[in-house]
Amino acid sequence: MINQLYNTSLSLLTDLYQLTMAYGYWKAGKAEQEAVFNLYFRKHPFQGGFTIACGLSSVVDYLSEYRFSEEDLAYVGSITGNDGEKLFEPGFLDYLKNIEFACSIDAIPEGTTVFPNEPLLRIQGPILQCQLLETPLLNLINFQSLIATKAARMRLVAKDDTLLEFGLRRAQGPDGGVTASRAAYIGGFDATSNVLAGKLYDIPVKGTHAHSWVMSFNSELESFETYAQYMPNNVTLLVDTYDSLNGVRHAIKVGNLLRERGYDLGGIRLDSGDLAYLSIEARKLLDDAGFEKTNIVASNDLDEHIMDSLKIQGAKINVWGIGTKLVTAYDQPALGGVYKLAAIRSESGEWDYKLKLSEQAIKVSTPGIQQVRRFKDTKGFVSDMIFNIETPATGKATMVDPYDFTRNRSFSESTSFEDLLVPIFVKGYLVYKMPSVHETRDRVQEQLSNFHKGIKRFVNPHTYPVGLEKGLFDMKTSLILKLRAANES
Amino acid sequence: MINQLYNTSLSLLTDLYQLTMAYGYWKAGKAEQEAVFNLYFRKHPFQGGFTIACGLSSVVDYLSEYRFSEEDLAYVGSITGNDGEKLFEPGFLDYLKNIEFACSIDAIPEGTTVFPNEPLLRIQGPILQCQLLETPLLNLINFQSLIATKAARMRLVAKDDTLLEFGLRRAQGPDGGVTASRAAYIGGFDATSNVLAGKLYDIPVKGTHAHSWVMSFNSELESFETYAQYMPNNVTLLVDTYDSLNGVRHAIKVGNLLRERGYDLGGIRLDSGDLAYLSIEARKLLDDAGFEKTNIVASNDLDEHIMDSLKIQGAKINVWGIGTKLVTAYDQPALGGVYKLAAIRSESGEWDYKLKLSEQAIKVSTPGIQQVRRFKDTKGFVSDMIFNIETPATGKATMVDPYDFTRNRSFSESTSFEDLLVPIFVKGYLVYKMPSVHETRDRVQEQLSNFHKGIKRFVNPHTYPVGLEKGLFDMKTSLILKLRAANES
Repeated sequence: MINQLYNTSLSLLTDLYQLTMAYGYWKAGKAEQEAVFNLYFRKHPFQGGFTIACGLSSVVDYLSEYRFSEEDLAYVGSITGNDGEKLFEPGFLDYLKNIEFACSIDAIPEGTTVFPNEPLLRIQGPILQCQLLETPLLNLINFQSLIATKAARMRLVAKDDTLLEFGLRRAQGPDGGVTASRAAYIGGFDATSNVLAGKLYDIPVKGTHAHSWVMSFNSELESFETYAQYMPNNVTLLVDTYDSLNGVRHAIKVGNLLRERGYDLGGIRLDSGDLAYLSIEARKLLDDAGFEKTNIVASNDLDEHIMDSLKIQGAKINVWGIGTKLVTAYDQPALGGVYKLAAIRSESGEWDYKLKLSEQAIKVSTPGIQQVRRFKDTKGFVSDMIFNIETPATGKATMVDPYDFTRNRSFSESTSFEDLLVPIFVKGYLVYKMPSVHETRDRVQEQLSNFHKGIKRFVNPHTYPVGLEKGLFDMKTSLILKLRAANES
Repeated sequence: MINQLYNTSLSLLTDLYQLTMAYGYWKAGKAEQEAVFNLYFRKHPFQGGFTIACGLSSVVDYLSEYRFSEEDLAYVGSITGNDGEKLFEPGFLDYLKNIEFACSIDAIPEGTTVFPNEPLLRIQGPILQCQLLETPLLNLINFQSLIATKAARMRLVAKDDTLLEFGLRRAQGPDGGVTASRAAYIGGFDATSNVLAGKLYDIPVKGTHAHSWVMSFNSELESFETYAQYMPNNVTLLVDTYDSLNGVRHAIKVGNLLRERGYDLGGIRLDSGDLAYLSIEARKLLDDAGFEKTNIVASNDLDEHIMDSLKIQGAKINVWGIGTKLVTAYDQPALGGVYKLAAIRSESGEWDYKLKLSEQAIKVSTPGIQQVRRFKDTKGFVSDMIFNIETPATGKATMVDPYDFTRNRSFSESTSFEDLLVPIFVKGYLVYKMPSVHETRDRVQEQLSNFHKGIKRFVNPHTYPVGLEKGLFDMKTSLILKLRAANES
């Protein structure tokens, strides 16, 4: 789906430092050394209690056509260092030219509820390739997971109301809009106004009309009548060009004309003013005129908090048009996903586990070839355990809170669970069948329904327990102590 | 540059309601009626005092290949209404198929400092075409102007320091990154880490290395030595993988080795911890070892406010690597640009001026075929006047504050000025030669230097005076009164 959109090889969609490191690995004879990196985030967006994984289908698409074109290589060959001399020698360009994607990737499927420190994606392969892919993988997964999560939060408030995504005009570029439309649909929206997204991703498209339609006629009533005349099966009338409640009265007149022709008034849209007051008054006007089934659509810088507030105020809105705050994830426009080296194959063939130190515990990375085990009971999911697949627990599994080693919990062998990461690529070969966007959308709701409601509230959500398997915790601890000691000496 | 990036016809990069309105205009016999729309914003982003116009080159690119492909039309033809019936009849698809872009566009050149209510772009032509273009024009100009403005704010703080854009991994999709890299360069950045942006837009690319490089070796020192061995002309060493000041000591060792070989240590990079303290200590260590010219690069969630604070604390940073907060415009990730109908040609051939009412004065649009006149004196620009080119002031020009009619100011005929909007397309033909990205970058600094420093401060910036020419103000007022009266009757 990414290659569908872009007209250029995207192999250079990476940071220059990935290329300089790749060059260094190549010069040092380490290019093919096997490495493992984990892609994860450290904190839920929006001060929330959950995140929805999204972006894997773009990753698959991206990697399926991964190669450096002649034009790419000519450009890379032209890059100079501080002294104006070329950075890369020709042999390296030949190496890039002959690269075939050869990594194995395991990932958590799109639409899954995920938590901090869990690897959304694990890549294993030649360190040079893993390194080059850091930037595009983060770019694709960070943004789409962010938007799917934002949309899922809005769905929680909307319950059975209709959610329409209207964000393209304020999105961060064409792709910022098109990709957001898909992620919003996955997160629980019903349709988008974005026609290109509808065409590319099989998402329903919906729309009303703008103020300019009304203004281009001599009167609002004339504009409504004309619209209804030509699109009688799609009549949602924007009523606030001059005065919202007057607009509703004009819409009712047109609704009566529609009924005479065997159609009905689909909806009215409020786009400014006090949406709680206006929707209640509009509902009364519509109901009194016999238009009980006509929808009341509202738009105007809405987000999940404003929706919540409107519902508490008794607003009679049953279709929500949401744009800017959704497609830019306005209150937190980036997910801070990171990509960390976790192991490297030593010359003896053993894994050499790796971590990055930091003064802040939250920023110390976790080593190991990681998998996530999600335990469940009859009521739903109860906790997730990150473990090293090279040293899985046998018998009873014990997990430790990574930020408070005094807290731990154990699960007997009979506790049911699922392991979240599934194989996507094996040594460069795609082995995963991507579900449809509709299946992924269903997965979001099915997943969320299995979690305690505490993680889904907006204010001080419950922290779902995610621990490190005890063996992995102990290995991490001893590695930290070893590195700290080496630094003091 | 947009068509360079995308692999698909972008004619459907619009909201469905633009298509339904287009259909309505077509059915009502109004498709070719001549209309004028203005694209403008109502408020500066980031609570600032200025905005930088950006995105026009994408607009030109977009419109230069504007057409509906067979695939587009097949998709449009398949869209259904609420009852499952097709929305559009075949004759309309034929009309779309034969559309040739025929509008005239005047716009303010990229890199110009602009203010609320000023038309960044004015489009005149068949109302159907103007309507379809609303969404893509807003999408392209909103985002790019936002990022260029954010970058210009950072340049104000950085003064002569080097600014590097590192945002791709957290950007809103691939294009969100690539386009932001260009806008950031225009706004005053020196280079980007984004290799694809470098290739596509002729922007310098720069980079260092990541923690994973260091972690992949047995020791930090070994990793630094290896890097310096193979890229001696590009050595900026990331020192915080284990302990920042220890890292600086290792970098100095490598710097001495480089000097023996006739090279020098380009820089060290700090990426965590107390950047004020660490940069001051690092500077001392470097200076004491004779590395006075080695750069100190800092990164880690920086924005213009943190930069300002670090400078006040005496931080010894002279190269700033800025990512997320820049490319997503983190504290305000969308510019609220709008696109409003301002006039329509009546059957008699006269302009019928149009405005949208609102309870909020700031949301009442301004009618007219607008141009912006920027007056200047010997010290720089003094105020901007929006006027209707159909009724230009003769002799002395008087402008009125649109939100307080008691405030006005006059300019004699001898006051020098420039009119900001220039012709871009005339009836569909491109008549504008786009400056290079480097010329546009220079224009930003040249423009800003001509404004009083009060508009450039971050806290309570001065409001630069922008008024409506008195004739236009009076016309707007009488139109408002007429519409309000019509609504009350």
